[in-house]
Parts: sequence; C-alpha cells; structure tokens
Amino acid sequence: MNQLSPHQSVSYRHILWLLFVCFASVANAKSSDPLPSWNTGASKSAIVQFVKNVTKKGGADFVPAAERIATFDNDGTLWSEQPIAQLIFALDRVKAEAPKHPEWKVIEPFKSVLVGDMKGVMASGEHGLMELMMASHGGMTTNEFEAIVKNWLATTKHPKYNRPYTELVYQPMLELLSFLRANGFKTYIVSGGGIEFMRVWMEKVYGIPPEQIVGSSIKNKFEWVDGKPVLMRLPELDFNDDKGGKPVAIQKFIGRRPIAAFGNSDGDLQMLQWISATNRPHFALIVHHTDAEREVAYDRDSSIGRLDKALDEAGQQGWTVVDMKKDWKQVFPFEK
Amino acid sequence: MNQLSPHQSVSYRHILWLLFVCFASVANAKSSDPLPSWNTGASKSAIVQFVKNVTKKGGADFVPAAERIATFDNDGTLWSEQPIAQLIFALDRVKAEAPKHPEWKVIEPFKSVLVGDMKGVMASGEHGLMELMMASHGGMTTNEFEAIVKNWLATTKHPKYNRPYTELVYQPMLELLSFLRANGFKTYIVSGGGIEFMRVWMEKVYGIPPEQIVGSSIKNKFEWVDGKPVLMRLPELDFNDDKGGKPVAIQKFIGRRPIAAFGNSDGDLQMLQWISATNRPHFALIVHHTDAEREVAYDRDSSIGRLDKALDEAGQQGWTVVDMKKDWKQVFPFEK
Repeated sequence: MNQLSPHQSVSYRHILWLLFVCFASVANAKSSDPLPSWNTGASKSAIVQFVKNVTKKGGADFVPAAERIATFDNDGTLWSEQPIAQLIFALDRVKAEAPKHPEWKVIEPFKSVLVGDMKGVMASGEHGLMELMMASHGGMTTNEFEAIVKNWLATTKHPKYNRPYTELVYQPMLELLSFLRANGFKTYIVSGGGIEFMRVWMEKVYGIPPEQIVGSSIKNKFEWVDGKPVLMRLPELDFNDDKGGKPVAIQKFIGRRPIAAFGNSDGDLQMLQWISATNRPHFALIVHHTDAEREVAYDRDSSIGRLDKALDEAGQQGWTVVDMKKDWKQVFPFEK
Repeated sequence: MNQLSPHQSVSYRHILWLLFVCFASVANAKSSDPLPSWNTGASKSAIVQFVKNVTKKGGADFVPAAERIATFDNDGTLWSEQPIAQLIFALDRVKAEAPKHPEWKVIEPFKSVLVGDMKGVMASGEHGLMELMMASHGGMTTNEFEAIVKNWLATTKHPKYNRPYTELVYQPMLELLSFLRANGFKTYIVSGGGIEFMRVWMEKVYGIPPEQIVGSSIKNKFEWVDGKPVLMRLPELDFNDDKGGKPVAIQKFIGRRPIAAFGNSDGDLQMLQWISATNRPHFALIVHHTDAEREVAYDRDSSIGRLDKALDEAGQQGWTVVDMKKDWKQVFPFEK
C-alpha cells in the first residue's frame, strides 16, 4: 500500500502544519523586535522599559491609553536639520517670486538671497530672517500654500544626500513612532517648524495626521475671493513654537501634559522640563548628533540645533540621551 | 415516563433559546434607533442619510474615516446658553475676588457686578465685558484655573432649572455625538467659549477629549514658580474663536476641513460656510431655539445667540435647520 490512507494523510498534513507553525513562530520572534534599527544598550532599554511600565495593567506605573500622549520635535529629532529644509524653501520661494518684486534687488535681506550670498542673509539677523519667512510664507490662501509646498518637496533635493528632504528622516525614530502607537500612544509633533509646511507631508512620512501636528504659525484670515470663502495667509507671525512656547502650545492644542517627549536641542528644553515636572511616570529623550560620518556631529557650539543647556539638564534629570553613532544601527531608511 | 429524556430536554432548551433570541432581536431592533430623542422628520432623516452616504464603502459619497471630522459649537448647540454659564462664572469670580481688590468698589464694570446691577454691567459694553473676562480668567496658573472651574461647576446651579450647568445639555445632541462617533467620526468642539473652561468638564459630559476641544483663549506664559515650571494665565486675549475666527481655528487646530458642522447662531455662520464651500459631501446643521416651554425661544432679535443671517443662508444653502420644539422628543437628559 503505497498510497496514504485518508487518516494518515491528515496526520502528515498535521505534522507539516505544526512544523510550519514552529518555523513561523521562530521567524516571528526574531522579527518581533519593534526597534530593529536601535543597537542594544541603555537608550533602547529605557524606551522599552518605559513602554512596558505604562502599559502594564495593574502595574504601579500604568497610564490609561487616552493619557498616553507623546510629543516629538521635528528638525533634528525626526529628520535632518542641516540645512533647515524650511529655510531653503523660503529662499527658493523668494527667488521664484523675485520677478514680481523688482524692489527686492536692492533691499536686504532679499538682495543677498538673490545673489546667493548666504553670509549676507545671515547678517540680516533674526529680523531679516523673519522678513524672509513672512514674504515667502504669506500672501496666498492655505490651499495655494499647500500646493506650493507639495511642488517644492517633489522637485527639491538635499544638497548632500541628493534625495528629497522627506527621505532624510531617521529610521530608528520612525520605528519608535510606530512602537509607541502600537502601544496605545497618540503621537504628536510639537515643532518650531511651520505648522502648514509640516502638515503637507507628515501624514505620509510619519503616519501623523494633521490634527496632531503643532508648530509655529502665521496669521490666517477668513476672506471671500470670487464668491468663495478662503483662508488668506497674512505675512504676520501668529505663534513661535519654540522654547517656552512649546509647553504653551502643548497646553493649547492638546490640553494635557504628555507622558513622553522627544527633542534634540535647547529649543526643546522647556518641553522636556514641562513633562518632567510631575510625579506621574514620564519619559524624556534627547537625540544627540554624534555621527559625523553618517550625518552631522554638533551640539554646544552649533548655530543650528544647539544642544547645550538641555544636555546639562539631561544629566541632572536622568533623561535618556541618544548617542546617534553608538545607539543607531541605521540612520536613514535608504541605507542598506 | 414523566421525565424528559436527555434528547427531549435539549430540544426544549433549544426552543426556549430560539424564543429568547427572537425576543432579543425584536427588542434590539426597537432600541437600535441611534437617535431615540429625535422625532421622525426631515432633520433626523437628513442626519441618518448623510451618515449612511459617507460610510457606504464604494458609494459615491464615501469618505474615509480619517477625514470624517465633525465640529460642534457649544453654547446653544450642545448646552443651554441662556444665561451664558461662563459669564456667570466670571461674575461669581469677581465677587469672590473682590476682597483682594478694594478698588473694584469704585471702578466699572466691577462696581456694577458687586452691587448686582446687570444693566450697569451690560452698559460697560464689549470693552467692559472683556475686562471682566480677563480679571476673572487670568492671573493664575492653568492648574489653579482648572481647580477653580471644577469647584464652581460643582457648587453652582442654573437659575431656572436649579441644576448644575453640566446637566443642561441637549439629549438629542448627546445622541448625535455618539451616533457620529459610532460611525467613525472624530467629534470636535469649536466654540467661542474659553478653551480651558470647556476642557474641565466636556470629556465627562460629551465624551470629547481635551485635544478635540477648540475655543477662545487668553495667553499663557511658561514660568518658574517655587522651582517648578507652570503655565501662567495672562489677562490678555489670545484668540476669539467666533465668526470668521472659527474657520481659522479649524485650520489651525485640525488642519483639514470638517465634513460636518453644527451650530445655532450667526457666530457659527462662517464655520458652516467654510465646510459647505466644497464639492465633497458635507452636512451643515443649525439648532433653532423654538421651544419656549421646555427651553427658550429666540432667534433674530436675541442679544445672546442671535440667529439671523445664518437662518437666511440656511434656506439658500439647503442646511438642515432643527426645530427644537418639533424635532426633539426630549430636550434635557433629566426629563422623563
């Protein structure tokens, strides 16, 4: 009798199926690390332990899902900030709009932008940079602005990596965002970046919907154009979501204190202080740019993303400081 | 043989069980109306039809769940606005704080508040009312303010109904909020009321979390008090979330256009216009206060919650206008 009886046949299938289940379980256990781009070490352990603590029902540190709010800075925390994409966008906008503004040829800081003199642009100081931001970000409807940003992102590449800016996001942080959400966290952006600039691309890139994106803003005005209501972007600062502005924005937009916050510079210090000034479980993390090879190394002396006071306070408060070079197996998604 | 055989016994049980299932199904069908406090009519039909359309997969009007944003005004739309609770709160606060401010005895509008002269208070106009709001809402931390509002709500009763203000919410609108959420909608408050005043009680009463509550605000400042960071409420207006401010606030806080909006006065007109100025499916509804018996009847001539221009436009735009007297079986939850 060479043929299997129906009974035997089922048994063999059963065994094959069991083997498959065993194999799948092993494969799954291997891939079940939610943070594969993080090297084993204190930073990764601290993250995993915190999430374990606040999600353990009946545990001393349990936090109900509705209160699991996590806020992330963007520039330098979730994507590369050298150069600052939104500043490049502003400069590109000024160049594109220059034909409509012949006066810019002789007025600073526009003149320096148009001749490509970045030193001259920087010499115009905070006031000059603000003028550039207002001229490039205001004077159109919210719909028009969205289309302009979309087009810019689709056609502009990072000077060093020659890739769209939206690819220069940190793979370990993408994993962290997913890991937190898989554990019931609501992830928010709280960034100094422009709120409408960020909303154009973040849902696709970070999985964060527009209503969970908080940033700096210019004033909008409800107006009628050609019989249709529009929101007109005025060249006037509404809110600067940086430093002490971050806890203010968190209170305004979210209305409760996050239990976790992630930043990389002194601009995030007050946000980290704010979430740490409570007896409830909380987790504060700083991304320290230590990797000159794969990205850029900078901290206390950098004009962009300076990390000085917050680095000192991290030591005192026991915040987690990520050493990009040591802690991250991979920096960008496009790396092998 | 009087005793049932095991087989018979099972059969009988089976029949009983089937009867129970039938009965339960009928009972369930009866109670499955998601809007039991709404009388059958055009308003109820329009709501149900809209929700059916946008949730029907593959249908022409289908809207993905993430885009099902619904915004609700509060005063006069979700709870009674005669009198405006937050104004009563402000007056009560001024009376409570008066001993610390002897100068108020001679300065208007405080003087009128302290002697109970409401005409004098109103005669101080918008500027006077703003002064009252700032004096009563500013000058403490966000935590302190929350405690003050909580205590006021717990100890104050509506002059007519002799019940806490939080009980004067509209039962049909509570059902509508639940119905929308059960169909994947994210429900938001977009109200002229104070954002921090509303956040104290709305999660419990409406099931709307703080991060989905948008309102008027005063400025907050990040400060250190006794070695701890606080958010200090400054007596300075930050944003007036009324009229054209509503679409502006929607864009700022939510970042996308709602597909449904609910209001009751001319203060909601621009919000309704904003959600209607699109080719996508949308639903605009106005609560018309027509019930002098169970609540208050008012519209075009009322100083509180005036409904005039928005009522005209509702006719032109085909918005749903709820006739409280006709459309609502029950107004408040405490009614039988």
